[in-house]
Amino acid sequence: MSQLDRVLSRIDADFDASLSRLFDLLKIKSISTDPAFKGDCRAAADWLARELTGIGIAATVRDTDGHPMVVGHKTDTDKPGPHVLFYGHYDVQPVDPLDLWECDPFEPRVVTREDGSKIIVARGAADDKGQLMTFVEAARAWIAETGGLPVSVSVLLEGEEESGSPSLHPFLEANQDELSCDLALVCDTGMWDRETPAITTMLRGLVGEQITITAADRDLHSGMYGGAARNPIHVLSDIIAGLHDENGKVTLPHFYDGVIDMPEDVTALWDKLGFDHEAFLGGVNLKHPAGEADRSALEHIWTRPTCEINGIWGGYTGAGFKTVIPSQAHAKISFRLVGDQDPDQIRLAFRTYVREQLPDDCEVTFSKHGGSPALRLDFDSPALAKGRKALSEEWGKEAALIGCGGSIPIVGDFKSMLGMDSMLIGFGLDDDKVHSPNEKYEMSSYHKGIRSWARVLDALSRD
Amino acid sequence: MSQLDRVLSRIDADFDASLSRLFDLLKIKSISTDPAFKGDCRAAADWLARELTGIGIAATVRDTDGHPMVVGHKTDTDKPGPHVLFYGHYDVQPVDPLDLWECDPFEPRVVTREDGSKIIVARGAADDKGQLMTFVEAARAWIAETGGLPVSVSVLLEGEEESGSPSLHPFLEANQDELSCDLALVCDTGMWDRETPAITTMLRGLVGEQITITAADRDLHSGMYGGAARNPIHVLSDIIAGLHDENGKVTLPHFYDGVIDMPEDVTALWDKLGFDHEAFLGGVNLKHPAGEADRSALEHIWTRPTCEINGIWGGYTGAGFKTVIPSQAHAKISFRLVGDQDPDQIRLAFRTYVREQLPDDCEVTFSKHGGSPALRLDFDSPALAKGRKALSEEWGKEAALIGCGGSIPIVGDFKSMLGMDSMLIGFGLDDDKVHSPNEKYEMSSYHKGIRSWARVLDALSRD
Repeated sequence: MSQLDRVLSRIDADFDASLSRLFDLLKIKSISTDPAFKGDCRAAADWLARELTGIGIAATVRDTDGHPMVVGHKTDTDKPGPHVLFYGHYDVQPVDPLDLWECDPFEPRVVTREDGSKIIVARGAADDKGQLMTFVEAARAWIAETGGLPVSVSVLLEGEEESGSPSLHPFLEANQDELSCDLALVCDTGMWDRETPAITTMLRGLVGEQITITAADRDLHSGMYGGAARNPIHVLSDIIAGLHDENGKVTLPHFYDGVIDMPEDVTALWDKLGFDHEAFLGGVNLKHPAGEADRSALEHIWTRPTCEINGIWGGYTGAGFKTVIPSQAHAKISFRLVGDQDPDQIRLAFRTYVREQLPDDCEVTFSKHGGSPALRLDFDSPALAKGRKALSEEWGKEAALIGCGGSIPIVGDFKSMLGMDSMLIGFGLDDDKVHSPNEKYEMSSYHKGIRSWARVLDALSRD
Repeated sequence: MSQLDRVLSRIDADFDASLSRLFDLLKIKSISTDPAFKGDCRAAADWLARELTGIGIAATVRDTDGHPMVVGHKTDTDKPGPHVLFYGHYDVQPVDPLDLWECDPFEPRVVTREDGSKIIVARGAADDKGQLMTFVEAARAWIAETGGLPVSVSVLLEGEEESGSPSLHPFLEANQDELSCDLALVCDTGMWDRETPAITTMLRGLVGEQITITAADRDLHSGMYGGAARNPIHVLSDIIAGLHDENGKVTLPHFYDGVIDMPEDVTALWDKLGFDHEAFLGGVNLKHPAGEADRSALEHIWTRPTCEINGIWGGYTGAGFKTVIPSQAHAKISFRLVGDQDPDQIRLAFRTYVREQLPDDCEVTFSKHGGSPALRLDFDSPALAKGRKALSEEWGKEAALIGCGGSIPIVGDFKSMLGMDSMLIGFGLDDDKVHSPNEKYEMSSYHKGIRSWARVLDALSRD
């Protein structure tokens, strides 16, 4: 029996205790955004530091200006494979509206479905206590069974992820040497579906711009000036309308420079697994993908860049009518970036385009928001191949390499501040109701999640 | 010496008394919008009814749900020419900000400019007490000198013009027979410039529409859905951008049906008088007329129809950024109409256009605002020719026939409720500061205004 098999057997044999420990953590009301739960956040950090230290990953609770971090290490320079930094967060979202919960959100329980499958219901069950505990329990089993971990492991557990991570930047900066590893393992994402594991390898970047178009130096009466005076809402509408062509492509010059085509095996698997486009858009009462005409909705949200107007305003917006020609019109515009698209180039291209469109009589001001490139784990990365193989073996189905349409700030921070790529492996499902009442985590996600990490750690240590 | 000459001489001889009477009216604080001045409004109405009755135009104060109307008649079925209804309003705007007034707004005074010209400074001096008194004093002189008026005259003086005229519709409806005359004379408009009298013969109509575009049934995260989900702000921008072509023309089919070309003598006079386009747009920090490329700014605001977006909103409009794809986007859109353009047809054409532009996934709702055709006094109207000749003779300069870009509700009501055209003759100037501190009326406007009405009444009585 291989070491790994012994570890997996131990995980199975010890699973009730693993579940009991997760319940202990779930009972702690670590709502980071509400000052009333400051003590609970520290209690959760203390609990985790004790657990980690107890299993052999020497951990401490580290103060910040906000909620504390938990940092642990079990490193051995002789170990093969990469030194990994595991990231998770112990804080949770508020529980309002409480009356929609079917049970106390901090009294976790197991519910058995009609088909016999089980779920764990509690605030934080999926986001992110259940997920982070899959790694902790896998590490516990490895150390208990073999006396060590297959690779060097550091752990960083945050307590402010649900409230904007205000302490994270200063903490990473102050502890750059300690936390810089070869690869981050982040457990805060999902599977393709209930049976199919997934590694999130692409996160879109973001460039935001707020623009204000000014025409006349005051609001004008449309009777007195209508027709003669430039209306900045028209100017803004023309600018926005010109950002996409009739096929839904963004028109900025060189916008698609750096966009990368997916490897065929990746998209082939997507095709095989069959993303349910109808259900995806139908869930919000839409039918037709709105982006580039020759791409699928899945490509639209994972692999293609976008330009979206997130807000627009100008003139009179109250009840009734006011026949005004406003002095100004405003919009908030964002671009989601993929591949190697350069945020600075795109911001520049956008501003140049707007200035070129601007009639003589108008002025424009720009206000910058965000500006982060897309992040991706190279499809050729050895760690990715190993992680994918490990997951596929555990779940009996080929692991999908997927994208995430939004950004996950920690991944950008790891890259920009610690020079470290992240491999995002998680076991959440779309219907986990994270941030909502009756949050749940599949029992199979917890159990097979622990087993998955056991396999991933083993795989990373091999050539 | 003709009757008219004797009347004009009497006006000159009696002018100091005319000014003194205007001052008496200006001292009454008839601010209609502020309930604290309810008694003052009635006092102004009482004063006017007494004055009119005193000169021979039997007048009464007529109660409404708001401030009273003053109605007077001096009719004689044997009189030649049209029976005219004179309209003015005795209420005034509030005086805030009071500290910007150089004197008490209700203590009228005469200020002599360096060039010797004089102005009357007080709230209501121009809008509309000074203007309405030009007619009253002309009538006084006619009756005093000749024992009667050249034509049958009715008078309607309103006390709610500055606060939305809530009582006007019910009053006109209840007194339709009494107030329906052959022609309305409205004194609430301006001259071309200090030396050049004008008759406003065209008022633009208005069609307003509020539209709401709905895509998804909730706001979406642009990371999760961006690219795939239809963004209603884009849809709205496309719709707005498509409303004008590259030459500034409105693209709705048949939109220009009913637009009328100006008679050459009218535009020739405009050219001769030289509208100062630079000053007009430069006053609000603009340089280039924004409307139809082959038309002047004066045409844009007087003789050409428009389509303006008066308000737009959707998505996140607060501080910072929220990467949302909103469920809805909204706009308030208005069309100014000219000539014989049909408001219903234009509303229908707009709605049809929007529906045709709408992607499958979107819904639109429309909310109707206003809907009034343009109003005009026929260029061939005999009364217009007479009025124009009378003004030209008084001022020694050919009277201009001008337009007004906005609407004047009373003119529409006279047309729709009493079946009566209006001839708009007034002596205001652009720099009269109506509604603002230090409102003034030119002494020459008051004096020559009285003389002008004396001539107009005479002219209307002739073949």
